[in-house]
Amino acid sequence: MITSRQNQWFRRFRDAIREHDREIVIEGPKMVRDAIAVGWRPIAVAVDVGLAVPGEAAAEMLPFATELFKMLTGTRTSQGMAGLFERPEGTLERIFARRDSVIVALDDVQDPGNVGTMVRLAAAFDAAGVLVTPGCADPLGQKAIRSSAGAILEVPVARVTHEELLAAAAQAGLPLFVADGSGTRLPPPAAGAILVFGNEGSGVSAVLAEGATKIAIPMSARVESLNVAASAAILLSRSYDRRVV
Amino acid sequence: MITSRQNQWFRRFRDAIREHDREIVIEGPKMVRDAIAVGWRPIAVAVDVGLAVPGEAAAEMLPFATELFKMLTGTRTSQGMAGLFERPEGTLERIFARRDSVIVALDDVQDPGNVGTMVRLAAAFDAAGVLVTPGCADPLGQKAIRSSAGAILEVPVARVTHEELLAAAAQAGLPLFVADGSGTRLPPPAAGAILVFGNEGSGVSAVLAEGATKIAIPMSARVESLNVAASAAILLSRSYDRRVV
Repeated sequence: MITSRQNQWFRRFRDAIREHDREIVIEGPKMVRDAIAVGWRPIAVAVDVGLAVPGEAAAEMLPFATELFKMLTGTRTSQGMAGLFERPEGTLERIFARRDSVIVALDDVQDPGNVGTMVRLAAAFDAAGVLVTPGCADPLGQKAIRSSAGAILEVPVARVTHEELLAAAAQAGLPLFVADGSGTRLPPPAAGAILVFGNEGSGVSAVLAEGATKIAIPMSARVESLNVAASAAILLSRSYDRRVV
Repeated sequence: MITSRQNQWFRRFRDAIREHDREIVIEGPKMVRDAIAVGWRPIAVAVDVGLAVPGEAAAEMLPFATELFKMLTGTRTSQGMAGLFERPEGTLERIFARRDSVIVALDDVQDPGNVGTMVRLAAAFDAAGVLVTPGCADPLGQKAIRSSAGAILEVPVARVTHEELLAAAAQAGLPLFVADGSGTRLPPPAAGAILVFGNEGSGVSAVLAEGATKIAIPMSARVESLNVAASAAILLSRSYDRRVV
């Protein structure tokens, strides 16, 4: 049983929770099982010895003293289990390979709750994948993972610079669309396009907005704008309806 | 200049921020001005003496020592000004009087960010008003006000029990609709109806869901459900389009 904060596993889990750089932590028996099922590579699984949890044969099981386990993770989310994984990285190639849907790009979206919610929306409305620029909150941080409600497992997510995004879009011949109140009231594209959602305060950066088509969501003049995740919900839902329903 | 934590005004502002019961606090010169402009009744306005802020003739101005002012409120949101107001209460009568739109009801929505976001959506899509049941986070708490991004001033909000809501709906002859994946893929009503959104975990309470029409939002099977504010964004936007566009 692991009882010390000096233990190498404790420190490795803690660092992965803080930094989620090359290794990340997934909380809860269901999420851990689901992550392994979709092909994420488990390094080890920490279990709270005080709680009876079902065994997870696919990775090394590490019994943690209850008090130490609680230092790592919230008891409600983890339910006595946390998995350490190699950070999964979606690739541009995989995301751009699908042409029957749209691609979602998050540009400097800073709130991890918004990022997680938008990953959930991308999965719900069957987007080809999610691109995140360097200024975004990390979709693989704990808060974003929680806000995604498991959907982070269902949709490929790739980190890209503005330049990589523009180059890949040009090469694939995919136009960019942004939600912008000053734009035109157009239905969003059903497929073969990139929908870009920008920073909560300043919107989509100029370099991406420049060549993009601006779509205005019809609304009353009583507010200036919508929350970025609300805009994404409306446009992705409409795109899905045009494609599928 | 007010310099002491024992000062009666300091304590009154602090209590209003904590309890937002009979008095509430609005932060920032623009929000304070806008609140007065829409008819909210100001009791006093606290200003940080260290910051030059434009005068507000409509209420008593109280100069606070910078350090004391910072104890009350976040500097970024307040920008040196916070207004104490009588808690505004929307009435059922006023909200039910409008028949050219839908009414939004929030049933035990617990996250203040979600409540604020949905108030903003109600304003954006010109709902007649927002009803909140006793289990909801308070739309007039600081976090909900911030998430509403000023929209709390643009839409009447009334607190109701389940019984009051059902009685008013019956009297007005307005049907209830809830977002529910097990329901039918129907377009949401354009007007003359109540759209009910429920708790993040358990959904709409049985007493309200019972007689309601369940609307399923078309989506892929990759997620089980949407975030409640995302559902509201999609349904309210569609309702608005059917009514206005």
